[in-house]
Amino acid sequence: MSRPAAVDGARLLRSLADFAAIGATPAGGVNRQALSIEDRRARRLLAERAWGRGFSVFQDEAANLFIRREGVHVDLPPLLIGSHLDSQPTGGRFDGALGTLSAFEVLEALDDAGVSTARPVEVVAFTNEEGSRYAPGCMGSMAFAGVHAVSAWHEVMAPDGTRLEEDLAATLKALPEAVMRHARPDILAFIELHIEQGPVLERETVPIGAVTAVQGTKWLEVTFTGQAAHAGTTPREFRKDAMAAAANAIAELQATVMAADPQSRLTVGRLTLQPGSVNVIPEQVTFTIDLRHPDGAALAVLEALVRKTCAIAGERWGCTAAIGLLLDMASGVFDSTLVDAIETACRSRKIACRRMTSGAFHDALFVNRIAPSAMLFVPCRNGVSHNEAEFVEDRHVLLGAEALLELTLNLAGRRTASEN
Amino acid sequence: MSRPAAVDGARLLRSLADFAAIGATPAGGVNRQALSIEDRRARRLLAERAWGRGFSVFQDEAANLFIRREGVHVDLPPLLIGSHLDSQPTGGRFDGALGTLSAFEVLEALDDAGVSTARPVEVVAFTNEEGSRYAPGCMGSMAFAGVHAVSAWHEVMAPDGTRLEEDLAATLKALPEAVMRHARPDILAFIELHIEQGPVLERETVPIGAVTAVQGTKWLEVTFTGQAAHAGTTPREFRKDAMAAAANAIAELQATVMAADPQSRLTVGRLTLQPGSVNVIPEQVTFTIDLRHPDGAALAVLEALVRKTCAIAGERWGCTAAIGLLLDMASGVFDSTLVDAIETACRSRKIACRRMTSGAFHDALFVNRIAPSAMLFVPCRNGVSHNEAEFVEDRHVLLGAEALLELTLNLAGRRTASEN
Repeated sequence: MSRPAAVDGARLLRSLADFAAIGATPAGGVNRQALSIEDRRARRLLAERAWGRGFSVFQDEAANLFIRREGVHVDLPPLLIGSHLDSQPTGGRFDGALGTLSAFEVLEALDDAGVSTARPVEVVAFTNEEGSRYAPGCMGSMAFAGVHAVSAWHEVMAPDGTRLEEDLAATLKALPEAVMRHARPDILAFIELHIEQGPVLERETVPIGAVTAVQGTKWLEVTFTGQAAHAGTTPREFRKDAMAAAANAIAELQATVMAADPQSRLTVGRLTLQPGSVNVIPEQVTFTIDLRHPDGAALAVLEALVRKTCAIAGERWGCTAAIGLLLDMASGVFDSTLVDAIETACRSRKIACRRMTSGAFHDALFVNRIAPSAMLFVPCRNGVSHNEAEFVEDRHVLLGAEALLELTLNLAGRRTASEN
Repeated sequence: MSRPAAVDGARLLRSLADFAAIGATPAGGVNRQALSIEDRRARRLLAERAWGRGFSVFQDEAANLFIRREGVHVDLPPLLIGSHLDSQPTGGRFDGALGTLSAFEVLEALDDAGVSTARPVEVVAFTNEEGSRYAPGCMGSMAFAGVHAVSAWHEVMAPDGTRLEEDLAATLKALPEAVMRHARPDILAFIELHIEQGPVLERETVPIGAVTAVQGTKWLEVTFTGQAAHAGTTPREFRKDAMAAAANAIAELQATVMAADPQSRLTVGRLTLQPGSVNVIPEQVTFTIDLRHPDGAALAVLEALVRKTCAIAGERWGCTAAIGLLLDMASGVFDSTLVDAIETACRSRKIACRRMTSGAFHDALFVNRIAPSAMLFVPCRNGVSHNEAEFVEDRHVLLGAEALLELTLNLAGRRTASEN
């Protein structure tokens, strides 16, 4: 006989703390970048907990990690729930981990209550969602969705010179007991729980967001090339200062893009210069631009503006400007039936919920290309994330897991033990 | 009997090539940063050539390297000639090396001709003039001039985390045969030959510049601190973007400072940001400003303008701005008798010469505080230096060495072997 399945709140909070300890930073955040030693430790911890429950553990060629609880009908496509385990270099404890560990809590809650589901339920931790050590982000979910074979990124290099292929092989090897999956299984749907990473839910004191769409993102890489020369002797008219060109372009874009359209987002998150000496005019400056807009056409206009602004700044300082596109994620609209199902699940558990779009991209954006997908958001303090200060209140952690459990039962099909 | 001393042009050009091979870069430049393995190899090569001639070799606690050819009157303060052997990370073959190797050529020329000088003549290679691996520059000459004890910089760290004290000890140890000097000997005067690193001599087709003064230099380090947050979800009004503040300040300063006063020089040569992820708003950006002006009061006004501009940019982006002064080199005026002596030497060798001020600082600026000092400049192509493309024509190399030889004879006192 089974009892009603219920989230074990204390266990879930403990689990969050256990994983936050892997790659913990002195300031209370997490540095657990994709395919690092820390990432491998987190993957092993989750796999060992799964084996302890008798669940099956799988990996695929992109090192995506799957934990499967069998359903009554083993041949039916499983419901997939989860998120990712990798973090930013100075990331928080919740981005990715919350969705993955809440999904695992759902499996444990079902198990504790002796509840069978009609369909199998699988928890997934996608590889390298953040893209901080190896760009671009969402490699694991892109490979899963067949956007690219993971081999397309084998030559991508980490800042320390390691090739992705090496770290990928080492990560897979670090979990030799897991079963290798060479083909993607069909799935019923994918549900990803995540922190909002924005201020909306907190401001409106609504604990759950039902995400209807994800805005589009482009990552551009701009390189200005001028001429290195002596800082003290070179008059203005002889300068081809790549840093002056870069500062001019960035300042101009920062002053105009977001002011003209409050839905736009523009961020320069990385910048390197050569040769990097106090008294040498920089010969070359390379920086990234993260550009977002919910509307695809508006995003294309912004990209054109970036290109034009950089060309003008380069000309002003006698530098050439080269612009590459590192990442181009079209905006995506989630499955409306699933969004409805999120609202229904919240209603039946008496949890307030609102529809919203996502400012950040997520693995669900890619899985959505091959199977119906949707996301649940929970609030985070001040909307801050990608930051060691990222924080989610305990009650929101628990409400999120509760909604995910209800939704899982509804989608995977309730079957009590007595019905088996 | 002695012959008239004469520069051996072929030998000097060979010597320049030999030293350019130490730390040679694929693009034809030199990476021989202060106290590096390459710097130590260059120091050893020079010392071995000195011993081969029977000259004496000394080091002091700052690892300044001295090569002494004895004079008739061994107790008279020697004439000091030379420059430095360290380079920028992507530096040229002539900056520093030309002055040091031309000075050594003068000793060899005197030796070959059997010419004795009344006073001893010492060649010096000052440590870390460039300041690229360990800031600030001119450490060796500052220590020599008593501006600071070298121990003041022991804790300075190279970008790879090495402490200066360690590299200094290893550099001294790498030349154990050299005699250690614990006190600075009195010197008669210091003459430094160097490339102009600016366009004046080339444009006017004058082969020698007699340097009357050096403009003042300040190195500032600016740090903007904001808040890391997600690039995709954080609206403009929530952003505390340290990179936006930095770009704003740099663009503003680049647009105004040099345009308002053509004698001003402003360069941002280094910039680092944290955390350095494409999709994270930078929390902290640190950059250097190299600021120069021939007039001390004008330089102080520029510094105040930098501070004000940074404060305004910080405020605009919700960031705090902290500004430190890494280096403060007052402008300096060289000894007029020595400048006259340079003109006289050039005249007697029929070499055209013009007076000029130096846009770059040099070791002579500091030695000038304790003994009469002056400099000779030779032209370099397009005024380009601190660049692998730095180039000096052979004929200018030879004219520079010839002028230095004549000046050395005049200052150290001509004594033929027959007079001994």
